[in-house]
Order: sequence, then structure tokens, then C-alpha cells
Amino acid sequence: MSSVTAELLTIGDEILYGQIVDTNSQWMSVALSEAGIQVVRKTSVGDVESEILTAFSEAEQRVDIILVTGGLGPTSDDLTKPCLVKHYNCELKINEEALSEVTAFFKSRGRELTDVNRQQAALPTCCEKVTNKIGTAPGMWFERNGKVLVSMPGVPHEMKLMMKDLIIPKLKQRFVTPTIFHQVIRTVGIGESFLSDKISSWERSLPPHIRLAYLPSLGDVKLRLTGIGKSKEELEKEMDELVDGLIPLAGEYIFGFGDDPLEKVIGDTLRDRNLTLSIAESCTGGYVSHLITSVPGSSNYFMGSLIPYSYEIKMRQLGVRPETLEQHGAVSEATIVEMANLVRAKFSTDIGVATSGIAGPGGATPEKPVGTVWIAYSDKHHTVTKKLQLSTDRGINIRLASTAVLNLIRQSLPKG
Amino acid sequence: MSSVTAELLTIGDEILYGQIVDTNSQWMSVALSEAGIQVVRKTSVGDVESEILTAFSEAEQRVDIILVTGGLGPTSDDLTKPCLVKHYNCELKINEEALSEVTAFFKSRGRELTDVNRQQAALPTCCEKVTNKIGTAPGMWFERNGKVLVSMPGVPHEMKLMMKDLIIPKLKQRFVTPTIFHQVIRTVGIGESFLSDKISSWERSLPPHIRLAYLPSLGDVKLRLTGIGKSKEELEKEMDELVDGLIPLAGEYIFGFGDDPLEKVIGDTLRDRNLTLSIAESCTGGYVSHLITSVPGSSNYFMGSLIPYSYEIKMRQLGVRPETLEQHGAVSEATIVEMANLVRAKFSTDIGVATSGIAGPGGATPEKPVGTVWIAYSDKHHTVTKKLQLSTDRGINIRLASTAVLNLIRQSLPKG
Repeated sequence: MSSVTAELLTIGDEILYGQIVDTNSQWMSVALSEAGIQVVRKTSVGDVESEILTAFSEAEQRVDIILVTGGLGPTSDDLTKPCLVKHYNCELKINEEALSEVTAFFKSRGRELTDVNRQQAALPTCCEKVTNKIGTAPGMWFERNGKVLVSMPGVPHEMKLMMKDLIIPKLKQRFVTPTIFHQVIRTVGIGESFLSDKISSWERSLPPHIRLAYLPSLGDVKLRLTGIGKSKEELEKEMDELVDGLIPLAGEYIFGFGDDPLEKVIGDTLRDRNLTLSIAESCTGGYVSHLITSVPGSSNYFMGSLIPYSYEIKMRQLGVRPETLEQHGAVSEATIVEMANLVRAKFSTDIGVATSGIAGPGGATPEKPVGTVWIAYSDKHHTVTKKLQLSTDRGINIRLASTAVLNLIRQSLPKG
Repeated sequence: MSSVTAELLTIGDEILYGQIVDTNSQWMSVALSEAGIQVVRKTSVGDVESEILTAFSEAEQRVDIILVTGGLGPTSDDLTKPCLVKHYNCELKINEEALSEVTAFFKSRGRELTDVNRQQAALPTCCEKVTNKIGTAPGMWFERNGKVLVSMPGVPHEMKLMMKDLIIPKLKQRFVTPTIFHQVIRTVGIGESFLSDKISSWERSLPPHIRLAYLPSLGDVKLRLTGIGKSKEELEKEMDELVDGLIPLAGEYIFGFGDDPLEKVIGDTLRDRNLTLSIAESCTGGYVSHLITSVPGSSNYFMGSLIPYSYEIKMRQLGVRPETLEQHGAVSEATIVEMANLVRAKFSTDIGVATSGIAGPGGATPEKPVGTVWIAYSDKHHTVTKKLQLSTDRGINIRLASTAVLNLIRQSLPKG
């Protein structure tokens, strides 16, 4: 079977000028690859008509599928639609269905449709509309000489929903793609190179039709196995066996499989075991609570948090003893133990966790440099503490410390 | 003066497969734009000889300068060098200076030079070597028919040092570049299309050498002016005057200029006026606190937060009256007023803010659909409340509500 190829085309000066990082095209690459479609080129051009038209023609020569993002806003610097009209040699006309969708969108937010918004419902007559459920610019699907071009808004969450719900299913119908099967193994608490060392023998034993990729992000590493074959069932069975072989080497770091992040896996465990959680977070400033509450249904097990950023609030609101703070400082094992126990008691939960550290850039001392963080877990059976030495970057420290707290919960929960 | 144009060409399967996000090209765009060089296209191709050669030829037709990253490693899937040799029709030969540099590099790290590493000192005979002070793969500078192509390693810190120290200075010598100046105007509390309506007369009056772009993200819109001219001072003065003309039309939505996000601007104001802040956040689950504490030095004005996620904690820890919750529910004006006032009193701060809403997907009632959010601001002079009707997406609602709270602080602060 010959492969189905795609080009990703991004339109907009903001990418060429470097004012935003293009994260859309990475997401699209992964989604297409999972659908058995091979991305062979990525192109970005600016808001210039001639550049956009050239890019359309060139891509049409090269690939089966062209996925275009950006340049669909209602303002005058958005040129994608006029260029598509030229390229496909048709007209721009108000699409009644699109108009009623965009009208409903504004109505649901209690706002009136302006003339500018109305123009978003104008579509080239030669395209099929792709509904945008969470935004005002519809997508557009074109076909000519066996080639497909789809234009989508550049707003990441709008593009992603459109791709997942409508475009990928339609592309899979339209083209015959090989079976590609992915298994994602989620790990936490170990860096990429250490993990790679631990599993090198396993990695070398992978058969040629199954490839491994390391996808590291802040605090965790995904292992993605990609297999190409004839049947999904066969590939799935083969990968299950491969994963079995991985457990003895790195099982303690594996928290799950597939899309669920650590906060979701922990949330599921808490709900299944009828356990409740409260958090006292200082240096992480709300980020642990944010991760926990980003999971739908988290109100079933998460009762609340206290963010005692100042010494005053640590003492008065949480109840940390002044002697502890004076003798050991806020960033200490003695303080973090009190914080975790106190929040658990005050909020009457089964589990309490706490963070305290020097996120940076200020606040460091010779003994406690930037990146020093204490975290603690407390339940009725035991209290567990951990000292972390992280980076010199504030944003990175907040994220790494938050992942470390989630991992501490995972490791310390009473066995079910 | 005609503009000097550049294309950024990235080589490597890892970008096409979506295994890494390409952050190099954003950095390069900014650096080139500051040097007066206009990036007109970005291209990524995989580790495939024919694709790479086509990309070289196409780029040479289009632009003055081609900047290539990636594909310079010592392994067999790295094809940039053999392709450059073909494209420029010359030979690959050990460059003695490069060999002594790479030998010294390995020696300084206490390692022996392997045969594979030795090959990194082999360069096309028709290029000029560009020294890599912190890595093993040298850069290469080619010139033909007035066009320049520079090949660099894809490792971000190696590429950046090479660009800053050697390549940008050399490009500025080689080409006569115009001055490019950017001004970014930050707005919040108004959507892209409404903003565009309000400022359309101003937009139409912009001179041809100054272009406007709308850069919307969740909850705020950046307006970017890009000017091309002879002197930075002249452009800066011209843009200042343009911004003055924007104030009467949209001044109330403008919170700042340049890179600082809203949480930084608010933080600066709080610090300058010696005001302290506390937060009671329910539906935003810690995200407002996270934004506030993501700013270095926020401990100067931010005292802490309470996240009363359950009814119990709203009553017991924050002190919301049971009658209020019973009569009006947690998502109501009566409750949000109490929450803002109570957190301000409990945490002894000048300002208290609060959020309570239905983030979704669960918890909705016919009167309070998903996306209903109440926010409040309280200081000793007044209490301000606002009801929001947001989207059906939990993640989006958390972010939009958090930006709305920051905007409410901005609008409600006592005049300085």
C-alpha cells in the first residue's frame, strides 16, 4: 500500500516574526501519524497573498492532503479565505447554515452579531463547511483532482476539536491508510536518559515494524510505540506483550497508558477508594490545585486548598507553629510535615499534601539555593516527605514540584 | 530600500512526526527580525535526500538567505552534509581547523575522539567553516549567485550562540538591511471582532509602511504594529503617536505594552501602591493564584488563597453563612460577595477577590448552565461583582474566568 502524504501549511505573520511558537503543527503531526497519514512537509508563510497562493499550488503538486491553519479571523489581515477563492476559482458567499451557527454562538454568549462577524459566515462556494462548535470561524473542505485541502482556524482548541471530531474521521473515509497502532506508556519520576539506560536491552529487542519514541515533557516521559501492520488486533496483542517485558525494568515509574495525565489517574484512584484530598501549597502557588481541579468530577474527592504564601498566613490560617518557622524556616522538613498534617486535619480529609520551596529568582540562601523544595504527604497511617533540588527557573520549578507532589501521592497512597 | 528576505529550513523526521516542538525557528525569527531581515517562509522536511535537495533549490529561488538547522549529527540518518555537497557540486573533505577544534572539544571533556566524531570535521570544500564553540558539529557558510546558505546544528544552545556571535554579524555585513520596529499593545476584556469594529477608522488610517496584526489568545488580544523604515527613533516616535490615537477608541481595554502579561502589570501596580491581595477561588481551582504567583516577587503583595471547593470548606474555613448557600447556592451574587469580603478580612489584605461557578461538564441546573461564573472584587471602598456566561469547555472556562478576575482587579483598583 502506498502511503498517504500530507503537508501542514500555517498562515500568519505572527509565526514568521516569531511572536508565537507554532505548537499546532506538532499536535497535528501526532494526530495524523496515528491516523496512518504521513506528514512530509511543514510550511509557514506570512499574510501575503502571493506567498499564500504559491504555497497552495506547490503543496498541491507534492501531497495528497493539505491542512491549512490560520488567517481565518474576521480582520483585514486575514487572507486565507480570499486566497482560497482565487485558488479554486469560485465565489465568496454567505453560507446560511454557517450564519445560523455563528449567530447561535454569539447569542449563547448574550452578544449581538456585528457586520464583521457576519463575514465569518461567508464561505467559498466550492467548499464544504466544517462546523466549528466552539468558535466563530468555520473550517472549509476542498477537493480537486483527488487532492484534499482543509482550512481550519489557528486557535489551538478550535483546531483540535475540529480535527478530532470531523476532519480525521473524514480523511480516514476518503483515503485508504495502513493500520498504524500506537501504545503510549506514561512514566514519571525518571529522566529520559536514565530511562533509556534502564530499558536499552528491551529497546534493542523491538521488531523492525515497531518503533519507539521518547516524548519527554516537564516532569514526565511518554514512551510511544508505533506499529505498522495489517490488523489492529495483531499489533495490539504484540504491544501488550512488549509492555509486559517493560514492567520488570521500569514498572515503578509507569503510572498509566494512553492519554490520561497523572492528575486524572490519581483522581480515579481517590474516587474508587472513597478517599478525600486537601492541599497546602506554598511555592507551587496554586498549580497543584489547578492540576487536580482540571479533571472533571474532581469535586468528588478534592475538598479544597490553602495557599499560605506569607509567614503570617502559614501561622494564622494554617496553624504552623511560630517556633517551627523560626527554628527551621518555611522551607524545611519540620515545616512541611506540619503543613501536610494541619491541612488534612483542618479540611477533615483522608489525605493532605504540602509544598514549600524557593521557586526563584529571589529568596535563596547559601544553604537553600533556588530550586530547593520540600514536599509532604500525610494520611492516618504515615507521613512521607521528600526534598527536591530543581532548576533555577521559576516557571519550571513550579511545574516540576507540582508533578513531584502528584507522584508522591501515587507512591504513598495506602494499597487498595 | 528593498527588503532582505530569509527562509528557515528545518531538517529532521522528529519535527514531521511531532516528536519535538520546533522552538528554534521562533527564536531565529525574532533574532532575524531584530536584525532587519524578513523571514518570509519556514519549511520543515524529513530525513529524505530528494526532499532536502528540492527544499534547497526552491528556497534559493525565493529568498536571499537560507538558514538550515538539523541533520548534522554523526549518525547515518543525518543527511544535511551529503545533500549540501550535491547541491553545491563539490567534495567532502576533512577540514584541518575543524578537526583540531573537535579534538580539543573532546579532550576538554576527557574523552577520546572516535572515528564517527572525526567525520564531523569533514566539510564540503566549497563552504566556509563556522566555529561551534560548544558542540562537535561546525556550521557551514555557502555563497552562490548572491545568495547565502548557512547550515547549523539543531541543538538549540549551539545554534543560538553561533547565530548571535557569528552569523547575524556576518549577515549584517553582507546585506544592507532596513530597520524593523515592533510595538505590541495588550488588550483584555474585548473579543477580536469587537475590538476590530471599534478601531476600524484608526486601522484604515495606518500608513503603508506600518502593518497591524491581531493576535488573540484565551481572554486577551494583542495588537502588533510592525514598521519598516530608516531609523528606529523615527519609527518609535511614529508608533507612539499612533498609540495615542488608539486611546480614545479602545483605551479602557489596553492594560499594557510589550511582553508583560496582565498578572505582571497588576502585580507591579499592587507593589507600587503598597497594596496586598488574597483570593478565594472555587471554580477556578487555583488557576488565578497560579497566574499571580507565576510572577517573580509576587510574595511582596500576594498573601495567600483559600480554595474552598466543597460546601463544607466554604462554610467552615472561609465562613460563608449556611443561609446564603442554602437560599442562593454557591454560584450566586450573594455568595461571591461574602467570599471576597471574607477572604479579605481573614487574610488581612487590602483587596480580596473570589470566583464561584459551574466549570463543567457536571453541576449545571436549568437556571445555571455550564459556564455560569460569578466573580467579585472587594476593598475597603467598595465591592464589585460580575456575572460571566462562558463556554461549555471546563479548561477554557477556568482560563477565561481567571483572566476576567485579573481584569476585574485592574478595573476596580482605587485610582493611584
